Amino acid sequence: MIIVTRPNITDSELDHIRERVEAAGLRTHLSRGEVRTIIGCIGDERLLEEVPLRSLPGVESVTPVLKPYKLASREFSVDRTVVRVGGQLGADVVASFGDQAVSVIAGPCSVENAAMTRDTARIVRASGAVALRGGAFKPRTSPYSFQGLGREGLEILADVRAEVGLPVVTEVLDVRHIDMIAEHADMMQVGARNMQNFALLAELGRVKRPVLLKRGLSATVEELLMAAEYVMANGNRDVVLCERGIRTYERATRNTLDVSAIPVLKRETHLPVIVDPSHAGGTQDLVAPLSFAAIAAGADGLIVEVHPDPACALSDGDQSLPPDAFASLMARLAPFVAAAGRTLAAPRAVAAAA
Amino acid sequence: MIIVTRPNITDSELDHIRERVEAAGLRTHLSRGEVRTIIGCIGDERLLEEVPLRSLPGVESVTPVLKPYKLASREFSVDRTVVRVGGQLGADVVASFGDQAVSVIAGPCSVENAAMTRDTARIVRASGAVALRGGAFKPRTSPYSFQGLGREGLEILADVRAEVGLPVVTEVLDVRHIDMIAEHADMMQVGARNMQNFALLAELGRVKRPVLLKRGLSATVEELLMAAEYVMANGNRDVVLCERGIRTYERATRNTLDVSAIPVLKRETHLPVIVDPSHAGGTQDLVAPLSFAAIAAGADGLIVEVHPDPACALSDGDQSLPPDAFASLMARLAPFVAAAGRTLAAPRAVAAAA
Amino acid sequence: MIIVTRPNITDSELDHIRERVEAAGLRTHLSRGEVRTIIGCIGDERLLEEVPLRSLPGVESVTPVLKPYKLASREFSVDRTVVRVGGQLGADVVASFGDQAVSVIAGPCSVENAAMTRDTARIVRASGAVALRGGAFKPRTSPYSFQGLGREGLEILADVRAEVGLPVVTEVLDVRHIDMIAEHADMMQVGARNMQNFALLAELGRVKRPVLLKRGLSATVEELLMAAEYVMANGNRDVVLCERGIRTYERATRNTLDVSAIPVLKRETHLPVIVDPSHAGGTQDLVAPLSFAAIAAGADGLIVEVHPDPACALSDGDQSLPPDAFASLMARLAPFVAAAGRTLAAPRAVAAAA
Amino acid sequence: MIIVTRPNITDSELDHIRERVEAAGLRTHLSRGEVRTIIGCIGDERLLEEVPLRSLPGVESVTPVLKPYKLASREFSVDRTVVRVGGQLGADVVASFGDQAVSVIAGPCSVENAAMTRDTARIVRASGAVALRGGAFKPRTSPYSFQGLGREGLEILADVRAEVGLPVVTEVLDVRHIDMIAEHADMMQVGARNMQNFALLAELGRVKRPVLLKRGLSATVEELLMAAEYVMANGNRDVVLCERGIRTYERATRNTLDVSAIPVLKRETHLPVIVDPSHAGGTQDLVAPLSFAAIAAGADGLIVEVHPDPACALSDGDQSLPPDAFASLMARLAPFVAAAGRTLAAPRAVAAAA
Repeated sequence: MIIVTRPNITDSELDHIRERVEAAGLRTHLSRGEVRTIIGCIGDERLLEEVPLRSLPGVESVTPVLKPYKLASREFSVDRTVVRVGGQLGADVVASFGDQAVSVIAGPCSVENAAMTRDTARIVRASGAVALRGGAFKPRTSPYSFQGLGREGLEILADVRAEVGLPVVTEVLDVRHIDMIAEHADMMQVGARNMQNFALLAELGRVKRPVLLKRGLSATVEELLMAAEYVMANGNRDVVLCERGIRTYERATRNTLDVSAIPVLKRETHLPVIVDPSHAGGTQDLVAPLSFAAIAAGADGLIVEVHPDPACALSDGDQSLPPDAFASLMARLAPFVAAAGRTLAAPRAVAAAA
Repeated sequence: MIIVTRPNITDSELDHIRERVEAAGLRTHLSRGEVRTIIGCIGDERLLEEVPLRSLPGVESVTPVLKPYKLASREFSVDRTVVRVGGQLGADVVASFGDQAVSVIAGPCSVENAAMTRDTARIVRASGAVALRGGAFKPRTSPYSFQGLGREGLEILADVRAEVGLPVVTEVLDVRHIDMIAEHADMMQVGARNMQNFALLAELGRVKRPVLLKRGLSATVEELLMAAEYVMANGNRDVVLCERGIRTYERATRNTLDVSAIPVLKRETHLPVIVDPSHAGGTQDLVAPLSFAAIAAGADGLIVEVHPDPACALSDGDQSLPPDAFASLMARLAPFVAAAGRTLAAPRAVAAAA
Repeated sequence: MIIVTRPNITDSELDHIRERVEAAGLRTHLSRGEVRTIIGCIGDERLLEEVPLRSLPGVESVTPVLKPYKLASREFSVDRTVVRVGGQLGADVVASFGDQAVSVIAGPCSVENAAMTRDTARIVRASGAVALRGGAFKPRTSPYSFQGLGREGLEILADVRAEVGLPVVTEVLDVRHIDMIAEHADMMQVGARNMQNFALLAELGRVKRPVLLKRGLSATVEELLMAAEYVMANGNRDVVLCERGIRTYERATRNTLDVSAIPVLKRETHLPVIVDPSHAGGTQDLVAPLSFAAIAAGADGLIVEVHPDPACALSDGDQSLPPDAFASLMARLAPFVAAAGRTLAAPRAVAAAA
Repeated sequence: MIIVTRPNITDSELDHIRERVEAAGLRTHLSRGEVRTIIGCIGDERLLEEVPLRSLPGVESVTPVLKPYKLASREFSVDRTVVRVGGQLGADVVASFGDQAVSVIAGPCSVENAAMTRDTARIVRASGAVALRGGAFKPRTSPYSFQGLGREGLEILADVRAEVGLPVVTEVLDVRHIDMIAEHADMMQVGARNMQNFALLAELGRVKRPVLLKRGLSATVEELLMAAEYVMANGNRDVVLCERGIRTYERATRNTLDVSAIPVLKRETHLPVIVDPSHAGGTQDLVAPLSFAAIAAGADGLIVEVHPDPACALSDGDQSLPPDAFASLMARLAPFVAAAGRTLAAPRAVAAAA
């Protein structure tokens, strides 16, 4: 922590600041300038978190030196974390995120019924997806919109896993649903609107399922990493981060894909980073270019909305790809994956992955 | 709903769009331009919510005509809603929001212990606050920060209410805490990070306590009203909205107080609107000017952080006012309240309020 | 300037950083932490501006200690600057900005013809405005929109000043127009889109007319002050700053009035600060609440669009007040001005002002 | 234009709205709903630009149907525009933008002296750049920073073109410099801060040099196209658009590269679109991933800052690539260009290009 003092600070104010810092267990080091003095605080600056340094008399600014996250940081783990999804609940394949391969999750926005979920799973597996997405509990801006099938949706997902073999990813909205969802799904998704639902994050730390953590609409990269830290500090190290577009002034697209966040995250954390081009762009025609850009910028994977008949989807039809467009996307993605020096993940049998 | 077609639309595409709209129960009306055709959809456009019109062939844009909120809208209630806080759990006074008076809630960021909570309550009541705020469960960006006293904090708040008489407002972070909090607090606060925690909003609709709903960091005015609609549609009409600063590119202040949102909300909804100048500005010196601006723009009240000794606060010390500064704020606020043609609310005995 | 080093910095990298800083004429002071070292750079940090410290090996971050503006800063001038407008070109009154009084500029978006300009001037003077605004050269997003009357508009403004007596404020878009405008107008306005048109700012530094400098749509407070510094460093100290709404994600209003910028600017600079509620809100109904909020937050004045018949205005009709609404605004403004401990400026005769 | 009326509109208000629209030369068409009426305005809606429809009594909202740009739109030109740079002033090669090839412009932020400019030109040409960038007039936030060499810088650029053969791109800040710059440079760059300097845009319409138009820090895609329209409407059709990062709340990067803008622009306009990864990211390590992402998303080219010794650069050293990093960038870019189905442009002799 670096404290810069106001020009007219008194000696007793300066002493008081040093005492507060030292009382928290750090050492101080002064650099006296002509106008201002710089106080370097040496030691574990997390100990200063509860000290309101900015409101002490004579303080002009306070700048942290250390990152506030620890478990999520590159310094904590030199090796990149590889998160394995599946293999616990009977999928015959395991997906992995964060290794050399690029992994694609695909599926409908909502689980609408068993038939369309099964059809979509077969379609996306055939085109190269290694996990199935599908919402059973849906976060909807309007209380009057379709809210998902709930438990019935989870059961459909579990049945489809058994039939088609792909591990399933589904969103959790409510701490009370965690156990039920963990019984049915291979990966628990935290949506953008819940990225700072700290009660939910803490509980997910206690679950033995990997977590797909989406960036909040106006969350900074640091806040995303602090949300991951919540899950990790509570015991669950299997977190995959997901950039899905941020809210800016621009309305030509639903959100603004922050493609720069991918290399920044890869520099700051050992956790895998994937991209959701469907929510970022908000329309079918943007899914392909944003997918290509994400992989080119270094993303470890994608999560893509696919629907057998988007024009009849109960939610997100505007941004869901029909089957042929998804097949085309995967085919066109391959050379970009190769250009990035990676391979496109293929579903792996559980036995082989073990 | 207004649908604008693409320049080269075919007759069969046009027919298909009309069929989809009419199948949902609305009528269509065509205005054929030289290049594009406008399709007016007449009837209840909420019925079109699940129809992905934007992805139908030939559609260029879709513009809603009606607001997506109903219970929260001015059209639903010509009279302004007055929300009464207190009177159910033994406070000897009742606060009200949305009438002619301007009401101020004040208190510490966190309930740290019984003594400081009691002291703060007495101080803020003496200066004119009509309700006490205080956090028992704290949403903290870091899992390593002080998370609040939990149930013990609630019990302190209830004791202080009995002693000092002010109704208490506290934040709810977790659906599983709702009943416990409702037993102890007079008003349930939803923080900015949970404004779109739809599970929490829906449950609060079933509670017989008024809700203080804070605007999310990047929520639009419409999304704030939709969050209120969630609570209302689930049965609870007593919602007070709170503007607390939004996230913009500007970092000279912690957030950017969207003062324009006050008159916009007063035009769009019958619900009361208050302002949190402490979180908006993030420093003590901004609390007064932002409070004055809020009242001048038409706010129905304020919620202000006050701490007996901000330099020792466990959280938000930088933005909490010490007692003398709060007394000064209330004194300087009075002429602005008068200029707005209103009065400053005084605590009213329950009997008198009945 | 504070430099924080990377964890694994070598001694020779550290030496090189110190050499670069010392070669620029500053002294360095080390605080060695357990992981990182802090290098305090003592002396005039403007000398480091051309040194790309962030790209030197071993550097993690660089934080300035001093503000980049000097002439505009509070430290440069303890006394607040009072900017006088008028008295040079024959107006019989002088307006002033930055003293105890709140001063209101009003007038049409564009000078459309002599009659409407004269009428508007009389109307706004009668209601208490102390200067007339009116655009002769208009910055329009579309090349096909009305671009203003140009020189003819300036001549109308000069004639109206002679007849009605108010000093006139008009926008300058093009460095080649500066002399012509200075011959006709009492104050030169720089619009939001030109706030970082450095060629224009530098030339305005050489003109003997006060400058009204509007904040750019996405300019920080610091960038606004640096734009003022450009004008001042080139010789013109008479700069009035104008907050006019910034661009955010919210579209319920045309822009988002950053009311917090007012107290922040009053803390950082000695220059006067006024507010443009017409552009900030974008609709007639928001002009009054935003004006009241601006004054409550400490603004030194307002600039308001008024048109004799807004429904027939050639530009900005949606946000221009008709005469009766402006009269009402001024009447309702008075108690807020009093609550702020100020008076509403009245036009003062040049002789009296001298 | 679509006008939606307020619920309680009177017949005479409705008639008045129709009269205003019809007086401007359009036809109106009513769709009467149960609550609101929709008025479709049929004809050239640019004729309605000066009519303040939103302020007419009874109007709730006004939505344009047509895009405000015409010459820049896809509808105006089915064929993509190919902009040729060079060949007028003696460069032995011509660069082109907007055809099948991906073209890279590279060079120093500022022209510091003849030697470094010549060295950089040779280096970037050897690595595959087809044009040289270099600033003679620099827009600097601080009036105390290095402002460029001015005319001397232009002369150096012209000399280097003669020696090395690459066409040169340089920024124009001031309308008074246009002719001088056009004598020395092959392409005129408009910087982000001047994107809505309409005087400059209009003058560039009259110059026989292609224009590189950078997107403003908070400009929408539509505003960028309107800025291009200014240049085109004044006679110059050779405009290349450049996405260079927008300003958002995120500060982990200097700006946020809006990679989605690339496919949106390719859909909306026939003009070429390139990307500036140096300004978007603000640090050397982000240049490569952002370059790859830009090409993957469909950009027609890049403009990259390269300096022989970034640690000694007079400006933008933090984001300038050293020669070896630029060579590496170009080598790694090639497979992404191929994945996008394109080729990397090679410098072409003027004769061959003719």
